[in-house]
Amino acid sequence: MSAGLKGIRLAVVGGDDRELYLIPELQKQGAYIVGVGYEKAPPLPGVTLISSLLEAVNEVDVLLFPMFGTDERGNVKGKYADLPIILNKDVIQAIPTRVPLFIGWAWPALKSIAEMKGIRIVETALLNEVAILNSIPSAEGVIQMAMELTLITIHGSQCMVLGLGRTGWTIAHMLKGIGANVTGVARKAPDLARAVEMGLKAVHFSELEEEIGSAEIIFNTVPYPILDRVILEKVARDAVIIDLASIPGGTDFEYAQMLGIKAKLAPGLPGIVAPKTTGKILAQVYPQLILRQLTTINTSIDS
Amino acid sequence: MSAGLKGIRLAVVGGDDRELYLIPELQKQGAYIVGVGYEKAPPLPGVTLISSLLEAVNEVDVLLFPMFGTDERGNVKGKYADLPIILNKDVIQAIPTRVPLFIGWAWPALKSIAEMKGIRIVETALLNEVAILNSIPSAEGVIQMAMELTLITIHGSQCMVLGLGRTGWTIAHMLKGIGANVTGVARKAPDLARAVEMGLKAVHFSELEEEIGSAEIIFNTVPYPILDRVILEKVARDAVIIDLASIPGGTDFEYAQMLGIKAKLAPGLPGIVAPKTTGKILAQVYPQLILRQLTTINTSIDS
Amino acid sequence: MSAGLKGIRLAVVGGDDRELYLIPELQKQGAYIVGVGYEKAPPLPGVTLISSLLEAVNEVDVLLFPMFGTDERGNVKGKYADLPIILNKDVIQAIPTRVPLFIGWAWPALKSIAEMKGIRIVETALLNEVAILNSIPSAEGVIQMAMELTLITIHGSQCMVLGLGRTGWTIAHMLKGIGANVTGVARKAPDLARAVEMGLKAVHFSELEEEIGSAEIIFNTVPYPILDRVILEKVARDAVIIDLASIPGGTDFEYAQMLGIKAKLAPGLPGIVAPKTTGKILAQVYPQLILRQLTTINTSIDS
Amino acid sequence: MSAGLKGIRLAVVGGDDRELYLIPELQKQGAYIVGVGYEKAPPLPGVTLISSLLEAVNEVDVLLFPMFGTDERGNVKGKYADLPIILNKDVIQAIPTRVPLFIGWAWPALKSIAEMKGIRIVETALLNEVAILNSIPSAEGVIQMAMELTLITIHGSQCMVLGLGRTGWTIAHMLKGIGANVTGVARKAPDLARAVEMGLKAVHFSELEEEIGSAEIIFNTVPYPILDRVILEKVARDAVIIDLASIPGGTDFEYAQMLGIKAKLAPGLPGIVAPKTTGKILAQVYPQLILRQLTTINTSIDS
Repeated sequence: MSAGLKGIRLAVVGGDDRELYLIPELQKQGAYIVGVGYEKAPPLPGVTLISSLLEAVNEVDVLLFPMFGTDERGNVKGKYADLPIILNKDVIQAIPTRVPLFIGWAWPALKSIAEMKGIRIVETALLNEVAILNSIPSAEGVIQMAMELTLITIHGSQCMVLGLGRTGWTIAHMLKGIGANVTGVARKAPDLARAVEMGLKAVHFSELEEEIGSAEIIFNTVPYPILDRVILEKVARDAVIIDLASIPGGTDFEYAQMLGIKAKLAPGLPGIVAPKTTGKILAQVYPQLILRQLTTINTSIDS
Repeated sequence: MSAGLKGIRLAVVGGDDRELYLIPELQKQGAYIVGVGYEKAPPLPGVTLISSLLEAVNEVDVLLFPMFGTDERGNVKGKYADLPIILNKDVIQAIPTRVPLFIGWAWPALKSIAEMKGIRIVETALLNEVAILNSIPSAEGVIQMAMELTLITIHGSQCMVLGLGRTGWTIAHMLKGIGANVTGVARKAPDLARAVEMGLKAVHFSELEEEIGSAEIIFNTVPYPILDRVILEKVARDAVIIDLASIPGGTDFEYAQMLGIKAKLAPGLPGIVAPKTTGKILAQVYPQLILRQLTTINTSIDS
Repeated sequence: MSAGLKGIRLAVVGGDDRELYLIPELQKQGAYIVGVGYEKAPPLPGVTLISSLLEAVNEVDVLLFPMFGTDERGNVKGKYADLPIILNKDVIQAIPTRVPLFIGWAWPALKSIAEMKGIRIVETALLNEVAILNSIPSAEGVIQMAMELTLITIHGSQCMVLGLGRTGWTIAHMLKGIGANVTGVARKAPDLARAVEMGLKAVHFSELEEEIGSAEIIFNTVPYPILDRVILEKVARDAVIIDLASIPGGTDFEYAQMLGIKAKLAPGLPGIVAPKTTGKILAQVYPQLILRQLTTINTSIDS
Repeated sequence: MSAGLKGIRLAVVGGDDRELYLIPELQKQGAYIVGVGYEKAPPLPGVTLISSLLEAVNEVDVLLFPMFGTDERGNVKGKYADLPIILNKDVIQAIPTRVPLFIGWAWPALKSIAEMKGIRIVETALLNEVAILNSIPSAEGVIQMAMELTLITIHGSQCMVLGLGRTGWTIAHMLKGIGANVTGVARKAPDLARAVEMGLKAVHFSELEEEIGSAEIIFNTVPYPILDRVILEKVARDAVIIDLASIPGGTDFEYAQMLGIKAKLAPGLPGIVAPKTTGKILAQVYPQLILRQLTTINTSIDS
């Protein structure tokens, strides 16, 4: 919309199709983009390609790493990269302290090195607003999975959502919109009250064992072994479980398989399901975050 | 629910997984079931299997053929059949006049032979109530297709539904439930008025050319070449078209491909997407239809 | 929007606040307005006031009478009129045959005189599109009545809508939007199928007696004595009945009172509840109707 | 449901029709009820009436005061009371320490006396779950007010909700259900993200001045002078403002009147709009709160 990023140089490092949609949106707002790991990408007008991350860090004001972070060794996946991209100690040490680093989430080791060096890391996937907006493509992704895995329509079915947090609410809301009967399971009284207001059947986790038997499709968002052997015993054999909790999920998948219950772990969905929407979501959120970081840093430098 | 079909013998002839869910529901209502073309099916308790259709017609009170009818030569698809099942002149002539024949839809030739022989044919796919209930799995099927084909979420997208009939309303309703901005395109003033009430943007077909350019996902339900070259020229190149109109659909698919627009014909979805729900829908609708036919016939015989 | 009524002279005869909102909308579309019965109205820029209907009919191309028609003697209610306005035989005879007369609904006597004289009467309240759009203020009106009459919230309550026609669907849709559990009662199988799709509990009128007992708020739209003694006996004593059917409604009000059940007849709501919206609805619908009439007449005169 | 309150003696002190619905629900759960201030009430089977609060405090295990608390002098409104009921220092000193006191909200003076005496006060109106459930009758109440005050339908109108908290979400949700275009105004990024997910137009308070001009109905929930002269200048003259913020509200009512804008303060709605629903809400929430207090106290006494 506005040209709020005018004159700011951003390095977009690695990533996937989301970044292809993110980059032009950032350019529209005035940013100058350096792409690291985009050798094999379709033409990106106005983007300066640099292959070496070490080289790039000195050319820019801000570093944008992907939502999915790095692996344990610092490898940054780059769908369109020719060469490996690695975010390691050497790179960290090369980053000027005025340059903030945005990344979905970071390993503790990375964070402590950065802290020692005085580099600011903003873990975007942990921000509530990012998580809520990302819950939209996630919810569509698991609903698509549910449509594929079941022999029934979601309309008219008995759905159960375990955990009414950022993603749980969105799934519940969408299932109701399609015409399902939705039970929301939560622990906190205010969440159960809100579930009543939203037209869900509200169930406390302490009653899960009695209630789960009537569910035909179960969506778990709780990163805790909630669907254990005791609970799984109560689940209908032709029910379908879709688990969105971060790996390893909250389901005893082996036991579910033994019982003949279809259970699937949903991978990081937003980037796969709707890279264009997700790229645009990031483009909506980043500018403010970037401006806040740059202002704060400059201020603290000035003073 | 009730045992309304008690003492009535039904032949279920051919079909697919829908029939596997339909059969036990009919049995619950008291029907005695003869299965024709179920040699390879999983065990069906209480069902008498007969391989020859010619033989079966004399053993029952009612004949139930599949929703998808037959091919031009009278072949009835039977997912679990060992031998071909053919509904031809010989079979028709063997059917006692007291036995009504239910089938999704019938070729004109078949209908005229039946008429001459005094056999009642009920084309169930043409019944409004069946078409409306079947529109639910159809709508979920095309929404699933849309989720697979697009790079965006349906939530927040610009969707357009061409034709507000039995299936069009259901698709529009569901898209809105997911959070899309939905435009309904129709020809009749009352349909446009209802679209306004339902919260859709109402557009008359005469304005389609000006309006279609902003659509990101287009669902066509009109069995008429509505998405022709002139209209396709106005469609955004990254839009997706899903055409539900009966073969050959309402889209110039070749021209769409030339323009680089993704366009797909949606096959007969209900049986594929949700055989269990669809079987149960049929089980809800058939008993009344059967009882009405049997009563009418008996009455006319009596008089 | 467009200036589709440019050069056309319309007499707006009698009416209430709806017409105050209708008139400027018609002017925006290019119409020249003559007001009959607006002596006491607030200033109406650009409107020519004429007190005598007899005089006005010769000055215009089209006559617009109110939605509520006339009384038995031809009196046209005019909220802002100084003198009575009467649509009688003399007036009819003075209308040139090229001038169509729009009115909500007309008494049979009026229609037969008009027919003999060759005057076209369009009864707008009978048009499906008008009735559907008017169902929106009607539905809000009865929901407001329900809120006033009950001690419970609509959210979470058991609501029952008798008759799924133009107004019934709108009420059902809105009640669901507020969070009620809604039962739709109808006679036709396709309407019941659509009720299922819309997430209502679908009940056939033949089951009304068994089902009505659980309703807390009952909305009747059927112009037939449906809520008779037998049915009322089954209604909960603290339930509330709101009857929208045209006078005398479909409820035995006396018997309801005897039983201690609150029952109210909803008057013609749209004009009272939301005159501005209703005026704008009419402004949306009239131009096309007018143009169609003028074109047809001219054509038939030309030929 | 259960008999969780068996053997527990509760004094219900003052209040209005809500208590008439609350009392039998508590009895169903096994509680023995003492009514203070119910001399003029309709018959309350099983309730022991005591006129003196001072006397009652020694007869019970729990004291339940109304949601609206007391006035500054400790007067407890009792719709069905013959004599004044006063909660003052003398009464506090007479309450045994084992008896918890539930009240909507309490004046600071009252709380400090209670604390000194070791009496537990639970302010129920401050509990999130109570506030969320009470937001349902509140939202219906303000929507009813909006229907009465406007000349337009809510369906299709431009509504704006200031503040997305416990009540704001519920109002927004219901307005959307009726068919309004809803803008949600908030300060926190996660609330704005959730507004997007819920299909609202999300606006930050910093943009209120530019955005408010298009609103037709404005609902304020922020207890802060948000609708001041500067903002009111931008509001359309025929818009309607309904202010739910606790007295004196967030609107400059005098200035609104000067500008000719209809603005109304919504009083404590739940008890007026839907005493039966509200009574039942309390009956759902109290038992757990009571049991928790009694258990805690006994435990601390035991130890």
